[in-house]
Amino acid sequence: MRDAGAERLGMDAATPTDPVVPIASAARRNDARHVLHPWSSHGALRPVVVAGADGAHFWDEDGRRWLDFSSQLVNTNVGHQHPKLIAAIKAQADKLCTVAPYHANEATSEAARLIAELAPGDLNRVFFTNGGAEAIENAIRMARLHTGRHKILAAYRSYHGATAGAIAATGDPRRWASEPGPPGIVRFWGPYPYRSAFHATDAAQECERALAHLADTIMAEGAQNVAAILLETVVGANGILVPPDGYLQGVRALCDAHGIAMIADEVMAGFGRCGEWFAVDRWNVVPDLITFAKGVNSGYVPLGGVIMSDAIAADFATRAYPGGLTYSGHPLACAAAVACIGIYKEEGLIDRARALGEDIVGPALQAMQARHPSVGDVRGLGLFWAIELVRDRDTHEPLVPFNASGGADAAMAEFAAACKRRGLWPFVAGNRLHIVPPLIVGEQDLREGLAIVDEALDIADRHSVG
Amino acid sequence: MRDAGAERLGMDAATPTDPVVPIASAARRNDARHVLHPWSSHGALRPVVVAGADGAHFWDEDGRRWLDFSSQLVNTNVGHQHPKLIAAIKAQADKLCTVAPYHANEATSEAARLIAELAPGDLNRVFFTNGGAEAIENAIRMARLHTGRHKILAAYRSYHGATAGAIAATGDPRRWASEPGPPGIVRFWGPYPYRSAFHATDAAQECERALAHLADTIMAEGAQNVAAILLETVVGANGILVPPDGYLQGVRALCDAHGIAMIADEVMAGFGRCGEWFAVDRWNVVPDLITFAKGVNSGYVPLGGVIMSDAIAADFATRAYPGGLTYSGHPLACAAAVACIGIYKEEGLIDRARALGEDIVGPALQAMQARHPSVGDVRGLGLFWAIELVRDRDTHEPLVPFNASGGADAAMAEFAAACKRRGLWPFVAGNRLHIVPPLIVGEQDLREGLAIVDEALDIADRHSVG
Ligand SMILES: Cc1ncc(COP(=O)(O)O)c(C=O)c1O
Ligand SMILES: Cc1ncc(COP(=O)(O)O)c(C=O)c1O
Repeated sequence: MRDAGAERLGMDAATPTDPVVPIASAARRNDARHVLHPWSSHGALRPVVVAGADGAHFWDEDGRRWLDFSSQLVNTNVGHQHPKLIAAIKAQADKLCTVAPYHANEATSEAARLIAELAPGDLNRVFFTNGGAEAIENAIRMARLHTGRHKILAAYRSYHGATAGAIAATGDPRRWASEPGPPGIVRFWGPYPYRSAFHATDAAQECERALAHLADTIMAEGAQNVAAILLETVVGANGILVPPDGYLQGVRALCDAHGIAMIADEVMAGFGRCGEWFAVDRWNVVPDLITFAKGVNSGYVPLGGVIMSDAIAADFATRAYPGGLTYSGHPLACAAAVACIGIYKEEGLIDRARALGEDIVGPALQAMQARHPSVGDVRGLGLFWAIELVRDRDTHEPLVPFNASGGADAAMAEFAAACKRRGLWPFVAGNRLHIVPPLIVGEQDLREGLAIVDEALDIADRHSVG
Repeated sequence: MRDAGAERLGMDAATPTDPVVPIASAARRNDARHVLHPWSSHGALRPVVVAGADGAHFWDEDGRRWLDFSSQLVNTNVGHQHPKLIAAIKAQADKLCTVAPYHANEATSEAARLIAELAPGDLNRVFFTNGGAEAIENAIRMARLHTGRHKILAAYRSYHGATAGAIAATGDPRRWASEPGPPGIVRFWGPYPYRSAFHATDAAQECERALAHLADTIMAEGAQNVAAILLETVVGANGILVPPDGYLQGVRALCDAHGIAMIADEVMAGFGRCGEWFAVDRWNVVPDLITFAKGVNSGYVPLGGVIMSDAIAADFATRAYPGGLTYSGHPLACAAAVACIGIYKEEGLIDRARALGEDIVGPALQAMQARHPSVGDVRGLGLFWAIELVRDRDTHEPLVPFNASGGADAAMAEFAAACKRRGLWPFVAGNRLHIVPPLIVGEQDLREGLAIVDEALDIADRHSVG
């Protein structure tokens, strides 16, 4: 049986078409017996046992090989096993693997300097965590302490992580099993032209109405009670929702008007994914707090963090910041960040992501939309794209229902399996395919991968009324 | 100015006696400008810039060298820069740094197998996280889902991490700034013979009364509403509180009687620190869930997790576990765990910790207690010991008040500085010195470190009425 939670995350690992391997390897056996995977049931899970990886490809124990259009969980931005990143990790391992977070060390200092240098405006100080959820937890705490207010406005169709604070802020169904959560989260609807919550007919109207809705929500909650507006700069797991031009500027203006902290969650969108160092750069918006993880070091060693404005940092100049974790500023993770940022620069990967998106991915997907009745919407930027599959282009009825699982998502499962059979590892979420390859993906590979998507869409078309 | 939060954590990094280095290194300068350290204010912080480390020692950029009686944050159990652990990290880096958590791979499978093999009873399945706080978050979620109940009983004088769920469960003052937190946490008092909440006169009575108090709390909350009792097997940061014999068995019996899940937080106490693989082994108690981090791989790569009983794992055989994180089962972190567990076994470090505690640390501290009027209490096991410093042995008045900061903690700061001046890095928390060296510490080093403590206690004695 396929797995509902996994499917929602694009985690359709258990390809139904896998031949049954008669004698399981030790890795497979021990995984089946002893590992619980995120968002998954272990009973029928048959994950790929990854044996190796290189650049934009990975392979399993039996030598099956896939072109990685998922960047795993949208983190391996510099691709798999980048030699310079590996060399940096090994050099740091020889030097100093770990220190307590109350000490300083060269790798952490340099990573913080580089990140502050890249961050917009006066975002100059970094609090390091192990991943994205912890970054959100600390950003929320900082916003509350800075404003002396409690409420956090967070969007439907968002994912912020799975610790109590982060999952409460999350707007997608993964939150449900963890409710009731902490108090003080207020939900709003963000812009999404293809499925407008505001009955808008174009992007400009969507932008205007989404901002009016947000302003109304602030009014109804009492602006003086709102600590932060938390949002993904470009919504990731919930659909690569690129905000219409003007939306983020409008959010910034609302925050300024009411003394609210703006938290941009760039865990997925940051570090090149959107063809910018930070996705907010696309709109020249400077938030008060940016959360990051994934692309900062491509996930080679767990790392995340919060970058804070000078004004927020000033709060903790004389007053101790009341938060922490054992591995904050972990030297090995920070050395990987230093190397990864160096690779982005040397190889021009940020600009490359923007160009590949504009020149290849966008046009290819638009061409598919013209050919395939199942393609309802195409959107994205950089190497961060989604196509939304529908049963009916007129009604926008999705190919599988919202949060479908256990068979109701069969059409998407079939589509994903078709990609995998052809050697492409897709990122499938709900009724969408996200196209999120590593930023180093070769042009030829990128085109071949897109051609596989094109072929597999014939299968989706069969479920569509056209 | 010294830092309150840091002090509470034993993080008195800014030694007031450090000579002022006229030209700051890049590492120091960038740290001062761009890093926010946990539980600290950055304005006056002058952290040690750690340049290197080896075994039980570390040194700074100016060549000052300390014997590490802190194991950083009680995580470097195999010491700094263990060659076999470094070799394993480098080998895994060459092989496969990262994969999505819905894939399987050899390192993660093997780490899970080894951990399950070491864990007591039927705790056979592991959910991996990046650290301790995330382990607690997931253990709480599992207990709630398994029992269908919401309330979590958690102890005063405990630390469980700083994400919303973990900090709400935390019983020490680090929680205050994050309140109000999520609902459903109920607080109880654990056994602490030296400062009994139950007016007990000996350990046996303390045990009996602490269990009666816990039973009363369960009764008053409604046993049918209680999902879990969460406690540190041996309380770490809040004082190395070793439970009297019978206490944990009693907690287990209460859990059994009422269908409550028992969560043993072994983030600090596990993996050899107490001279056992898991501290619960000392009392032959099998909890339903064990949380771990730190010692599992000595913190060389961020890793934590939850080990669950077969009954809890069975819940997620067909139903997806509703929790996750990008770096669950991170290959590099898991390869470090496999190597670290191998080192514990090859070098007999678990037994060694027990023997060093019984033969050297315990007797030495008891001898100090006899000599120094400031030593009110000595307690511990394995290489997990505390001495509690008091103004008055009769009243037990602590050398510095509860949660003291900003000068009120001067006596402890002076004591810590005296240790550092003599080349010993202490772990100071509140009115206590915790003695938590790496398990590989040489006998000669251990004796010399204890001799330094002995000397420094002369300073503490001056603040004591004797
Ligand atoms: C936007 C966003 N925020 C936060 C997170 C949580 O990060 P982590 O899984 O490292 O806890 C994710 C993970 O996918 C994310 O996409
Ligand atoms: C007993 C215990 N639980 C949980 C934690 C939190 O772990 P982390 O700092 O890795 O989040 C700690 C950290 O010191 C701890 O000692």
